Amino acid sequence: MRNLTVDIGNSRIKISVFDIDEQIFSQVFDMLTADALAPIIDNYKVGRAIISSVTGYDYDYVTWLNEHLKTVILLSSSVKVPVKNGYGTPETLGMDRLAAVVGAAHIKPGAPLLVVDAGTAITYDYMSADSTYYGGNIAPGALLRLRSLNEHTDRLPLVDMRSHHCTEILGQNTQDAIWNGVVRGIAYEIEGYISYLKERESNLEIFFTGGDAFFFEKYIKSSIFVVANLTAIGLNAILNYNLN
Amino acid sequence: MRNLTVDIGNSRIKISVFDIDEQIFSQVFDMLTADALAPIIDNYKVGRAIISSVTGYDYDYVTWLNEHLKTVILLSSSVKVPVKNGYGTPETLGMDRLAAVVGAAHIKPGAPLLVVDAGTAITYDYMSADSTYYGGNIAPGALLRLRSLNEHTDRLPLVDMRSHHCTEILGQNTQDAIWNGVVRGIAYEIEGYISYLKERESNLEIFFTGGDAFFFEKYIKSSIFVVANLTAIGLNAILNYNLN
Repeated sequence: MRNLTVDIGNSRIKISVFDIDEQIFSQVFDMLTADALAPIIDNYKVGRAIISSVTGYDYDYVTWLNEHLKTVILLSSSVKVPVKNGYGTPETLGMDRLAAVVGAAHIKPGAPLLVVDAGTAITYDYMSADSTYYGGNIAPGALLRLRSLNEHTDRLPLVDMRSHHCTEILGQNTQDAIWNGVVRGIAYEIEGYISYLKERESNLEIFFTGGDAFFFEKYIKSSIFVVANLTAIGLNAILNYNLN
Repeated sequence: MRNLTVDIGNSRIKISVFDIDEQIFSQVFDMLTADALAPIIDNYKVGRAIISSVTGYDYDYVTWLNEHLKTVILLSSSVKVPVKNGYGTPETLGMDRLAAVVGAAHIKPGAPLLVVDAGTAITYDYMSADSTYYGGNIAPGALLRLRSLNEHTDRLPLVDMRSHHCTEILGQNTQDAIWNGVVRGIAYEIEGYISYLKERESNLEIFFTGGDAFFFEKYIKSSIFVVANLTAIGLNAILNYNLN
């Protein structure tokens, strides 16, 4: 009997199937329906699911999973997790952020961790070596920054981060200035957190995840792990933890 | 006969009156009209004006100034400036950015300069010691970042940068996480540019201007000059340069 993880984010829904600890299937949806889930549940003999959402759980496919699987966990602050939650207001912590930290701790147990999740938002989360999650920050992601310059100024164009490119650090035209301003700015921001935390914990392990993780990897000088499915790994770890 | 500088930004219009090099009056408008300008022109015996705009020059008060003053310069890439413009596409350079660099060069002539203008957007502009402006970057300002998180995610609140405050570097609740994410992120971004440029030019002088300059000053470890009216100083210098 396999595990299904469902990560409902601000813009997309990512599902994965795990056989114990091994991920054997993954798919990303703009919209998810019970009809799309049914054959996956059937093919992979899924019997359990864990769902994390930043937009609530009021979806038909969540109801459908609840009716069709043996165990369904809707991740919330009352679900047991294999790390200590030292966040000031656990009930308001984004469950995707908690899951990503659990995923990193599953890969590097016992190490102090920084998890950078670069998606719609960029979240920075810190966990100490004794597995206590201490909180973290939320900044706009690259696309939000690019859109905000275009939407809230009179004359700045919308620059496409992936089709545009600039090798100089300082822009020589408006497109380059915006591309650099957002890309270099995010890279400097990430390096700033790494420097700050490495001063406190020299053996800090740094994990990168989220849709923009591979893009930003090349702009970071520090040694980092890019793990695209960190949240899924964490969700699966939380599901297994609650079964035992 | 005094000089008037008019800086038309994305959200506000800043005007200043200079007696040769000394600023003797300044006012900020959400909207400007000829009726509001007329008594100022009269009281301060203004005879000349220079206008910089990031939204064009199609305003009644610009027409009115043109009709009532001896000299009116609409700043564009064809106006002579007291620095060399090494920007790749001078015709697309924001005139407020050029003016701020000229203002910094007027205060610290002969030094390599970084000008950080923290307003609606945050612009980073670099000029070498031989007074050649080399370009720079454009990133969203603090308010744009705070708004983008609220507008483009499902559950993140709009945090007020000035009423909220957090002494910890890592947020322990959603408001703190967003406030820190934006404020610390911008500070790390600014420090990133300073480090990068100081490696090239150890005697770099760093100028801060724009509506958020005083707010961010306390989060920057490097030695910086905060000059609220840097763009006005630069516009006045350009006006005087063109009169001589």
